[in-house]
Amino acid sequence: MKAIILFGHGARDPRWREPFDRLAKLWQEQHQNTPVELAFLEMMQPSLEEAVSALSTQGATQITVVPVFFGQGGHLRNDFPALLEACQQQYPNIKLSATSAVGEDLAVLQAIVDFGAKAL
Amino acid sequence: MKAIILFGHGARDPRWREPFDRLAKLWQEQHQNTPVELAFLEMMQPSLEEAVSALSTQGATQITVVPVFFGQGGHLRNDFPALLEACQQQYPNIKLSATSAVGEDLAVLQAIVDFGAKAL
Repeated sequence: MKAIILFGHGARDPRWREPFDRLAKLWQEQHQNTPVELAFLEMMQPSLEEAVSALSTQGATQITVVPVFFGQGGHLRNDFPALLEACQQQYPNIKLSATSAVGEDLAVLQAIVDFGAKAL
Repeated sequence: MKAIILFGHGARDPRWREPFDRLAKLWQEQHQNTPVELAFLEMMQPSLEEAVSALSTQGATQITVVPVFFGQGGHLRNDFPALLEACQQQYPNIKLSATSAVGEDLAVLQAIVDFGAKAL
Protein backbone atom coordinates (compact mmCIF):
# COMPACT_ATOMS: atom_id res chain seq x y z
CA MET A 1 0.00 0.00 0.00
CA LYS A 2 1.20 3.47 -0.90
CA ALA A 3 1.23 6.25 1.68
CA ILE A 4 2.45 9.83 1.93
CA ILE A 5 4.23 11.91 4.54
CA LEU A 6 3.99 15.70 4.45
CA PHE A 7 7.24 16.82 6.07
CA GLY A 8 7.50 20.33 7.52
CA HIS A 9 10.08 22.27 9.49
CA GLY A 10 8.20 22.68 12.77
CA ALA A 11 8.04 25.73 15.05
CA ARG A 12 7.65 26.63 18.70
CA ASP A 13 4.17 28.12 18.30
CA PRO A 14 1.63 25.28 18.07
CA ARG A 15 -0.57 27.44 15.81
CA TRP A 16 2.17 27.22 13.18
CA ARG A 17 1.02 23.73 12.28
CA GLU A 18 -2.56 24.69 11.42
CA PRO A 19 -2.03 24.77 7.62
CA PHE A 20 -0.25 21.42 7.87
CA ASP A 21 -3.26 19.92 9.62
CA ARG A 22 -5.51 21.36 6.90
CA LEU A 23 -3.17 20.00 4.25
CA ALA A 24 -3.33 16.48 5.70
CA LYS A 25 -7.14 16.71 5.94
CA LEU A 26 -7.40 17.90 2.34
CA TRP A 27 -5.17 15.03 1.21
CA GLN A 28 -7.22 12.44 3.08
CA GLU A 29 -10.52 13.76 1.71
CA GLN A 30 -9.24 13.50 -1.84
CA HIS A 31 -7.08 10.38 -1.59
CA GLN A 32 -8.95 8.08 0.77
CA ASN A 33 -6.91 5.03 -0.19
CA THR A 34 -3.54 6.65 0.45
CA PRO A 35 -2.93 7.23 4.15
CA VAL A 36 -1.18 10.45 5.08
CA GLU A 37 0.88 11.47 8.08
CA LEU A 38 2.51 14.76 8.95
CA ALA A 39 6.10 14.78 10.19
CA PHE A 40 8.36 17.56 11.40
CA LEU A 41 12.11 18.16 11.37
CA GLU A 42 12.18 19.86 14.77
CA MET A 43 10.12 21.40 17.57
CA MET A 44 6.96 19.48 16.64
CA GLN A 45 5.74 15.90 16.70
CA PRO A 46 5.67 13.41 15.15
CA SER A 47 9.20 12.95 13.83
CA LEU A 48 9.80 11.41 10.42
CA GLU A 49 10.61 8.10 12.11
CA GLU A 50 7.37 8.19 14.10
CA ALA A 51 5.35 8.94 10.97
CA VAL A 52 7.01 6.04 9.09
CA SER A 53 6.28 3.79 12.06
CA ALA A 54 2.61 4.81 12.12
CA LEU A 55 2.20 4.19 8.39
CA SER A 56 4.04 0.88 8.66
CA THR A 57 1.51 -0.21 11.30
CA GLN A 58 -1.26 0.72 8.85
CA GLY A 59 0.31 -1.55 6.24
CA ALA A 60 2.20 0.93 4.06
CA THR A 61 4.85 -0.62 1.83
CA GLN A 62 5.76 2.45 -0.25
CA ILE A 63 5.98 5.88 1.35
CA THR A 64 6.58 9.11 -0.55
CA VAL A 65 7.88 11.94 1.63
CA VAL A 66 6.95 15.43 0.40
CA PRO A 67 9.05 18.23 1.95
CA VAL A 68 6.62 21.07 2.57
CA PHE A 69 9.35 23.68 2.36
CA PHE A 70 9.80 26.53 -0.10
CA GLY A 71 13.55 26.53 -0.53
CA GLN A 72 16.09 23.75 -0.44
CA GLY A 73 18.76 24.85 2.00
CA GLY A 74 20.76 23.02 4.63
CA HIS A 75 17.73 21.32 6.19
CA LEU A 76 16.69 19.62 2.97
CA ARG A 77 20.15 19.10 1.49
CA ASN A 78 21.81 17.74 4.63
CA ASP A 79 19.51 16.94 7.56
CA PHE A 80 16.65 15.44 5.58
CA PRO A 81 18.58 12.87 3.46
CA ALA A 82 20.31 11.64 6.61
CA LEU A 83 16.97 11.28 8.43
CA LEU A 84 15.42 9.52 5.46
CA GLU A 85 18.33 7.12 5.18
CA ALA A 86 18.12 6.32 8.91
CA CYS A 87 14.38 5.58 8.51
CA GLN A 88 15.07 3.41 5.47
CA GLN A 89 17.57 1.33 7.44
CA GLN A 90 15.11 0.98 10.30
CA TYR A 91 12.26 -0.09 7.98
CA PRO A 92 13.96 -2.12 5.24
CA ASN A 93 10.64 -3.60 4.07
CA ILE A 94 9.20 -0.18 3.22
CA LYS A 95 10.25 1.58 0.04
CA LEU A 96 10.91 5.18 1.07
CA SER A 97 11.31 7.96 -1.48
CA ALA A 98 11.22 11.73 -1.45
CA THR A 99 10.17 14.48 -3.81
CA SER A 100 11.81 17.87 -4.16
CA ALA A 101 10.52 20.68 -1.96
CA VAL A 102 7.02 21.85 -2.88
CA GLY A 103 8.48 25.30 -3.58
CA GLU A 104 10.14 23.78 -6.66
CA ASP A 105 6.73 23.14 -8.21
CA LEU A 106 5.50 25.73 -10.70
CA ALA A 107 1.83 25.18 -9.83
CA VAL A 108 2.58 25.92 -6.16
CA LEU A 109 4.40 29.13 -7.16
CA GLN A 110 1.51 30.07 -9.46
CA ALA A 111 -0.97 29.63 -6.61
CA ILE A 112 1.15 32.02 -4.52
CA VAL A 113 1.22 34.57 -7.35
CA ASP A 114 -2.57 34.30 -7.67
CA PHE A 115 -3.00 34.71 -3.91
CA GLY A 116 -0.94 37.92 -4.04
CA ALA A 117 -2.85 39.23 -7.05
CA LYS A 118 -6.19 38.77 -5.26
CA ALA A 119 -4.90 40.84 -2.34
CA LEU A 120 -3.86 43.91 -4.34
CA MET B 1 1.17 52.92 -7.97
CA LYS B 2 0.60 49.54 -6.35
CA ALA B 3 3.50 47.18 -5.67
CA ILE B 4 4.05 43.86 -3.93
CA ILE B 5 6.69 42.42 -1.62
CA LEU B 6 7.11 38.66 -1.33
CA PHE B 7 8.46 38.20 2.17
CA GLY B 8 10.31 35.01 3.08
CA HIS B 9 12.19 33.70 6.09
CA GLY B 10 15.69 33.54 4.63
CA ALA B 11 18.33 30.84 5.15
CA ARG B 12 22.10 30.44 5.27
CA ASP B 13 22.31 28.48 2.02
CA PRO B 14 22.04 30.89 -0.92
CA ARG B 15 20.34 28.17 -3.00
CA TRP B 16 17.39 28.37 -0.60
CA ARG B 17 16.19 31.52 -2.32
CA GLU B 18 15.90 29.99 -5.80
CA PRO B 19 12.11 29.44 -5.65
CA PHE B 20 11.71 32.99 -4.36
CA ASP B 21 13.60 34.33 -7.35
CA ARG B 22 11.38 32.25 -9.64
CA LEU B 23 8.31 33.49 -7.79
CA ALA B 24 9.29 37.14 -8.32
CA LYS B 25 10.01 36.47 -12.00
CA LEU B 26 6.66 34.74 -12.43
CA TRP B 27 4.91 37.68 -10.77
CA GLN B 28 6.67 40.22 -12.97
CA GLU B 29 5.88 38.32 -16.17
CA GLN B 30 2.19 38.22 -15.30
CA HIS B 31 1.80 41.60 -13.59
CA GLN B 32 4.05 43.96 -15.53
CA ASN B 33 2.45 47.08 -14.05
CA THR B 34 2.90 46.01 -10.43
CA PRO B 35 6.56 46.03 -9.38
CA VAL B 36 7.68 43.23 -7.10
CA GLU B 37 10.52 42.93 -4.62
CA LEU B 38 11.60 40.03 -2.48
CA ALA B 39 12.39 40.65 1.19
CA PHE B 40 13.67 38.37 3.94
CA LEU B 41 13.28 38.27 7.69
CA GLU B 42 16.83 37.10 8.36
CA MET B 43 20.02 35.72 6.82
CA MET B 44 19.23 37.07 3.34
CA GLN B 45 19.00 40.44 1.65
CA PRO B 46 17.14 42.65 1.06
CA SER B 47 15.39 43.35 4.34
CA LEU B 48 11.76 44.46 4.38
CA GLU B 49 12.90 48.05 4.87
CA GLU B 50 15.26 47.84 1.89
CA ALA B 51 12.50 46.41 -0.30
CA VAL B 52 10.08 49.19 0.72
CA SER B 53 12.80 51.73 -0.01
CA ALA B 54 13.43 50.25 -3.48
CA LEU B 55 9.73 50.29 -4.35
CA SER B 56 9.35 53.81 -2.97
CA THR B 57 12.10 54.93 -5.36
CA GLN B 58 10.14 53.31 -8.20
CA GLY B 59 7.08 55.39 -7.24
CA ALA B 60 5.05 52.87 -5.25
CA THR B 61 2.33 54.41 -3.08
CA GLN B 62 0.57 51.21 -1.95
CA ILE B 63 2.56 48.10 -1.08
CA THR B 64 1.04 44.73 -0.21
CA VAL B 65 3.39 42.42 1.68
CA VAL B 66 2.74 38.71 1.14
CA PRO B 67 4.37 36.47 3.75
CA VAL B 68 5.63 33.45 1.83
CA PHE B 69 5.44 31.21 4.88
CA PHE B 70 3.35 28.11 5.48
CA GLY B 71 2.46 28.52 9.14
CA GLN B 72 1.88 31.60 11.24
CA GLY B 73 4.09 31.22 14.28
CA GLY B 74 6.22 33.65 16.26
CA HIS B 75 7.90 35.14 13.17
CA LEU B 76 4.64 36.22 11.59
CA ARG B 77 2.70 36.95 14.76
CA ASN B 78 5.43 38.96 16.52
CA ASP B 79 8.49 39.87 14.44
CA PHE B 80 6.69 40.69 11.20
CA PRO B 81 4.04 43.14 12.51
CA ALA B 82 6.78 45.04 14.36
CA LEU B 83 8.92 45.22 11.20
CA LEU B 84 5.95 46.32 9.13
CA GLU B 85 5.02 49.02 11.62
CA ALA B 86 8.61 50.31 11.67
CA CYS B 87 8.58 50.50 7.86
CA GLN B 88 5.23 52.29 7.91
CA GLN B 89 6.60 54.92 10.28
CA GLN B 90 9.66 55.36 8.09
CA TYR B 91 7.59 55.71 4.92
CA PRO B 92 4.43 57.53 6.03
CA ASN B 93 3.47 58.39 2.43
CA ILE B 94 3.25 54.74 1.42
CA LYS B 95 0.21 52.68 2.37
CA LEU B 96 1.62 49.38 3.65
CA SER B 97 -0.60 46.36 4.19
CA ALA B 98 -0.06 42.63 4.63
CA THR B 99 -1.90 39.46 3.75
CA SER B 100 -2.02 36.29 5.83
CA ALA B 101 0.66 33.69 5.16
CA VAL B 102 0.32 31.96 1.80
CA GLY B 103 -0.11 28.65 3.67
CA GLU B 104 -3.53 29.91 4.78
CA ASP B 105 -4.73 29.88 1.17
CA LEU B 106 -6.70 26.84 0.09
CA ALA B 107 -5.48 27.03 -3.52
CA VAL B 108 -1.87 26.91 -2.32
CA LEU B 109 -2.64 23.87 -0.17
CA GLN B 110 -4.45 22.25 -3.10
CA ALA B 111 -1.40 22.78 -5.34
CA ILE B 112 0.71 21.00 -2.69
CA VAL B 113 -1.77 18.09 -2.53
CA ASP B 114 -1.66 17.82 -6.33
CA PHE B 115 2.15 17.91 -6.32
CA GLY B 116 2.18 15.02 -3.84
CA ALA B 117 -0.38 13.05 -5.83
CA LYS B 118 1.71 13.32 -9.00
CA ALA B 119 4.71 11.89 -7.15
CA LEU B 120 3.00 8.72 -5.89
